[in-house]
Amino acid sequence: MYSFKNDYSEGAHPRILNALLETNLEQGEGYGEDKYTEEAVKLLKEKIGRNDIDIHLFPGGTQTNLTAISAFLRPHEAAVAVSTGHILVHETGAIEATGHKVISIEAKDGKLTPEHIKEALEAHTDEHMVKPKLVYISNSTEIGSIYKKAELIELSRFCRENKLYLYVDGARLGSALCSEENDLELSDFGSLVDAFYIGGTKNGALLGEALVICNNSLKEDFRFFIKQKGALLAKGRLLGIQFLELFRDNLYFELAKHANSMAQLLKKGISEEGYSFLIDSPSNQIFPILPDNIIEKLQEKYLFIIWQKNNYNTSVIRLVTSWATKEEKVLEFIKDLKC
Amino acid sequence: MYSFKNDYSEGAHPRILNALLETNLEQGEGYGEDKYTEEAVKLLKEKIGRNDIDIHLFPGGTQTNLTAISAFLRPHEAAVAVSTGHILVHETGAIEATGHKVISIEAKDGKLTPEHIKEALEAHTDEHMVKPKLVYISNSTEIGSIYKKAELIELSRFCRENKLYLYVDGARLGSALCSEENDLELSDFGSLVDAFYIGGTKNGALLGEALVICNNSLKEDFRFFIKQKGALLAKGRLLGIQFLELFRDNLYFELAKHANSMAQLLKKGISEEGYSFLIDSPSNQIFPILPDNIIEKLQEKYLFIIWQKNNYNTSVIRLVTSWATKEEKVLEFIKDLKC
Amino acid sequence: MYSFKNDYSEGAHPRILNALLETNLEQGEGYGEDKYTEEAVKLLKEKIGRNDIDIHLFPGGTQTNLTAISAFLRPHEAAVAVSTGHILVHETGAIEATGHKVISIEAKDGKLTPEHIKEALEAHTDEHMVKPKLVYISNSTEIGSIYKKAELIELSRFCRENKLYLYVDGARLGSALCSEENDLELSDFGSLVDAFYIGGTKNGALLGEALVICNNSLKEDFRFFIKQKGALLAKGRLLGIQFLELFRDNLYFELAKHANSMAQLLKKGISEEGYSFLIDSPSNQIFPILPDNIIEKLQEKYLFIIWQKNNYNTSVIRLVTSWATKEEKVLEFIKDLKC
Amino acid sequence: MYSFKNDYSEGAHPRILNALLETNLEQGEGYGEDKYTEEAVKLLKEKIGRNDIDIHLFPGGTQTNLTAISAFLRPHEAAVAVSTGHILVHETGAIEATGHKVISIEAKDGKLTPEHIKEALEAHTDEHMVKPKLVYISNSTEIGSIYKKAELIELSRFCRENKLYLYVDGARLGSALCSEENDLELSDFGSLVDAFYIGGTKNGALLGEALVICNNSLKEDFRFFIKQKGALLAKGRLLGIQFLELFRDNLYFELAKHANSMAQLLKKGISEEGYSFLIDSPSNQIFPILPDNIIEKLQEKYLFIIWQKNNYNTSVIRLVTSWATKEEKVLEFIKDLKC
Repeated sequence: MYSFKNDYSEGAHPRILNALLETNLEQGEGYGEDKYTEEAVKLLKEKIGRNDIDIHLFPGGTQTNLTAISAFLRPHEAAVAVSTGHILVHETGAIEATGHKVISIEAKDGKLTPEHIKEALEAHTDEHMVKPKLVYISNSTEIGSIYKKAELIELSRFCRENKLYLYVDGARLGSALCSEENDLELSDFGSLVDAFYIGGTKNGALLGEALVICNNSLKEDFRFFIKQKGALLAKGRLLGIQFLELFRDNLYFELAKHANSMAQLLKKGISEEGYSFLIDSPSNQIFPILPDNIIEKLQEKYLFIIWQKNNYNTSVIRLVTSWATKEEKVLEFIKDLKC
Repeated sequence: MYSFKNDYSEGAHPRILNALLETNLEQGEGYGEDKYTEEAVKLLKEKIGRNDIDIHLFPGGTQTNLTAISAFLRPHEAAVAVSTGHILVHETGAIEATGHKVISIEAKDGKLTPEHIKEALEAHTDEHMVKPKLVYISNSTEIGSIYKKAELIELSRFCRENKLYLYVDGARLGSALCSEENDLELSDFGSLVDAFYIGGTKNGALLGEALVICNNSLKEDFRFFIKQKGALLAKGRLLGIQFLELFRDNLYFELAKHANSMAQLLKKGISEEGYSFLIDSPSNQIFPILPDNIIEKLQEKYLFIIWQKNNYNTSVIRLVTSWATKEEKVLEFIKDLKC
Repeated sequence: MYSFKNDYSEGAHPRILNALLETNLEQGEGYGEDKYTEEAVKLLKEKIGRNDIDIHLFPGGTQTNLTAISAFLRPHEAAVAVSTGHILVHETGAIEATGHKVISIEAKDGKLTPEHIKEALEAHTDEHMVKPKLVYISNSTEIGSIYKKAELIELSRFCRENKLYLYVDGARLGSALCSEENDLELSDFGSLVDAFYIGGTKNGALLGEALVICNNSLKEDFRFFIKQKGALLAKGRLLGIQFLELFRDNLYFELAKHANSMAQLLKKGISEEGYSFLIDSPSNQIFPILPDNIIEKLQEKYLFIIWQKNNYNTSVIRLVTSWATKEEKVLEFIKDLKC
Repeated sequence: MYSFKNDYSEGAHPRILNALLETNLEQGEGYGEDKYTEEAVKLLKEKIGRNDIDIHLFPGGTQTNLTAISAFLRPHEAAVAVSTGHILVHETGAIEATGHKVISIEAKDGKLTPEHIKEALEAHTDEHMVKPKLVYISNSTEIGSIYKKAELIELSRFCRENKLYLYVDGARLGSALCSEENDLELSDFGSLVDAFYIGGTKNGALLGEALVICNNSLKEDFRFFIKQKGALLAKGRLLGIQFLELFRDNLYFELAKHANSMAQLLKKGISEEGYSFLIDSPSNQIFPILPDNIIEKLQEKYLFIIWQKNNYNTSVIRLVTSWATKEEKVLEFIKDLKC
């Protein structure tokens, strides 16, 4: 069985493990105050092009989201997210568990626009309702779509006008930034959003996400929140060493490019067989619509998720590629599809 | 500078990294449903000698504590801990952040007795007060002491009679179990307590703690809590592989023994110089009382924590050893102390 | 200005104040352990027809909802409610503030059916999502509709089959039970639901709601939760005396009948003028659709809420009647509508 | 049986009920936006001598404390209180239930000093611990003592220097301000503390506490918190009318004076019999130390709390007086004590 189930089915890129090995027997400070974490933070600041930002490394994405959002919001304030957003669906109510409502917005392509947020603002008028305060978006989104620069600028402008924080879940930021349709750079996030995170787990690391706080008012005492939520690793250098390796010569982007190209190769092959897609995703997740009998046959050799029923005899499946996806397996999948 | 500051200043034992390397490019299930985690859980059950227990692997200790305790308690129920307990001092109010009070008990040696808990029960009489429900102990404790079997049996009996859960923070369980004064075995925890965790981070792992739930009534839906608190690692096998390596031929205990013997060597040497100790710790943390001018001199070559002022010109320091502590450095420290 | 804005615009029914006056200078136990509260609880049990239920008196509805729901649910469990449900819209995220997600279901008439809940259950499949556990309904609903006996029986059966708690927000239970279309009795709630509350504030009391817990497993330690949420009034007899007065000779139902008949009189009058309604409400809230210019004219003499825009020149307004609504004012309103 | 058990064993002062009666059938706005609440707020501002403060009326004390403290603090911040403080003992962990630790300080007389707080600050040094941010004091305290002006000035200065909020639980503020030893006025609180509340329930009201927010930075969006915690009464005028009556001609102070004079009469009588006291309380709670056999005899005619064992045959009891305590009963108690 070969897995297209998700982008965390394998270990780390070999260079990551190698970096851990090389530094393994050195002594260092705990809790992310070691020299590797400091260097990784310095390097990330350079890549983002701002020195006046705070960067904190986390073990995982849900923890990053819940720690950041609960730190940023006062008790009556709510997040706004698209109904397919990770915090609304797949984090077991982690945000609500910290006391905050997440307002759900329907959107076909998994992306929020100022119009969506305006609608949420207009529906929340007084103290009998929560107060929308933070806009949560994912890039790439949970259904593979990406934000274009013009869209992010618009969102950013709207949020600032309305005193809303703009927060980007970048679990798959690498894939978004390396998409052929992308026109955003890391530095754009530094200037357009209040906080975002750069996902490592789904792009070559063993584990690790780098939270970037751009808005000064959100920085104070942030390490207290990390510790309180249990996210301050004793051997924090484990995260620093990985991000240093991922970014020192742009390995991060190479890996994302590979994942994307494998997904696009799949898309091309499936498309040529005459099948359509739930959404025209330009990143490392694609959502072909296939006949159920073909899906069943593919399941004998491949692991993947059946996303949803499409009609009586077809379904949408999700295929995810990663830094480790092998081209030969992609080609084999396409060949198997044809038979 | 050589560090006796804590037991997480180094990386992982080389065999751990090797095990990660060997399995790195295999595909596997995410979220701890991979075969290595399954094997590790099976192996731990054997070591504990019970098959009817649930085991969940966590990235870190604070997260284990907050997830378990908040899952076990209803909103009005409180934990009881000794005033030096980790959850009372060094977890930034993580338990309170989940809504639960931690009742603090003074105890000189860092250990709770039935009398202590009785006192807490008698002080909480009705619905105007929280209801003590979970007894939190650490083994070894935050000041290096360990529980003897007779003590744990007594605590266990008292807790069962009073319908209290007994929970053991085992961040340093390896060191406790390998202490020369210890008479407890892993299987004793399986039969005497409701839940406990086996600490990996402080005993050779990169990161990882294994929570063991013995009480049936505490098992239901537990993976929901892990996910909700952000502790369900996507590449969960990272934890499984490590615990498998630590326990398949008792590496875990070898490492703890080494740490203990290094600490006891330090203790012997310091003792022979005529210095006394805050507490007669039999584990990998020792607390000598030294003259301030000697402490200052030692600080030129060694990292360690000044635990507390003792009197006008002496202080208590904490020296911690680990699986990686070098005997030559211990001997050098003792030599430096003499000069 | 005469107000049809809501059913808490006036004080209490005079008999309530009189009962408070008569008992005012007696000494009694605090915190709801006085004889009047005991008598009120006994009386309510008789009215409901079960002695094996627990009844707790609360100052207000939001507090009743948040205390009960957070007491009933474990951290990963969620409530399911219709999108117009009070806890989803008008309680400032009070349920989420206790850590629980409320799953929103769209339903035209403000009522949940087993099909709706089934849909929620099917969408929540594993530990990456919250677990639906409590079904929240209001009777009468926030838009004036009521549940029929057959509907409640169906819901109850479905909830029991699926191990879900069925909880009824009865802020306007009096109005529901006294509606001409109603075929439910208080005793039906005692046998069909797990918990419900009987609203006093909106039906003649100064303040006060009576929470009835029918399910044994939800009763334990409940007074702890009341105190923890700040809902245990020191002079708890204030609530007991009122419920005793409301129920000792069915004043409660008389008042609700009056409110309903005033609303239905309004409905008839408005209907006869040829106007239609958002929903055919049989209780004390009606939602006529009127031309905007007429609404503006009515606003010169009457207070009411503009519920929503209907089309370019008509809107839905909400008219609410109460125990205190004067028939002459209703007739005057209808007359004014005609002009 | 006559009760000296507490100061909420009776109803309201008759003038309060009368004021409710007189306004009962008027229509008014809900949720504390009625004219009586507005007038009460205006009047209280005059009494406090500041117009730039915010005043919110609450049903009860625990609710006031939990709403205010959870609104004022960020997730990692803690309150500091004396170990006998109401929030530490008798609110069922209400503050912790909102996520915040309460740091406990031992103090013989129930009062905090800058030295106490300094100690708490020095013990909380970094992000592994909670951050002390709010100082909670009660006046009068839970054991009847009161703060003198010089003490409050000192506390205020210390808190401002250390960026701590100073919060006063004034459940018995009337009794404190009317004590013969008192030298504070309402206006002093307006200038020295960040927020405080004026207790109505224990001084003549049916229910009600007036929270005063003096610090501008704590005012924003406060009504959201009141609603979210379930403390926004639908018929909010119930609170406004009472505070208006209590303060329009200083009834509040008259009632407190009466309560104090009854307690001091008790104290004098008990003292003359040769008995001593746990603390020399100048307010409406006194704590005589009596032989157990005499206590038993008194219990045949009087209700009161046995506060604590004193030695093998004496105990401390608590006697509380109120606006409604009858002088003849006080004299009778003293006479019964003599026999």
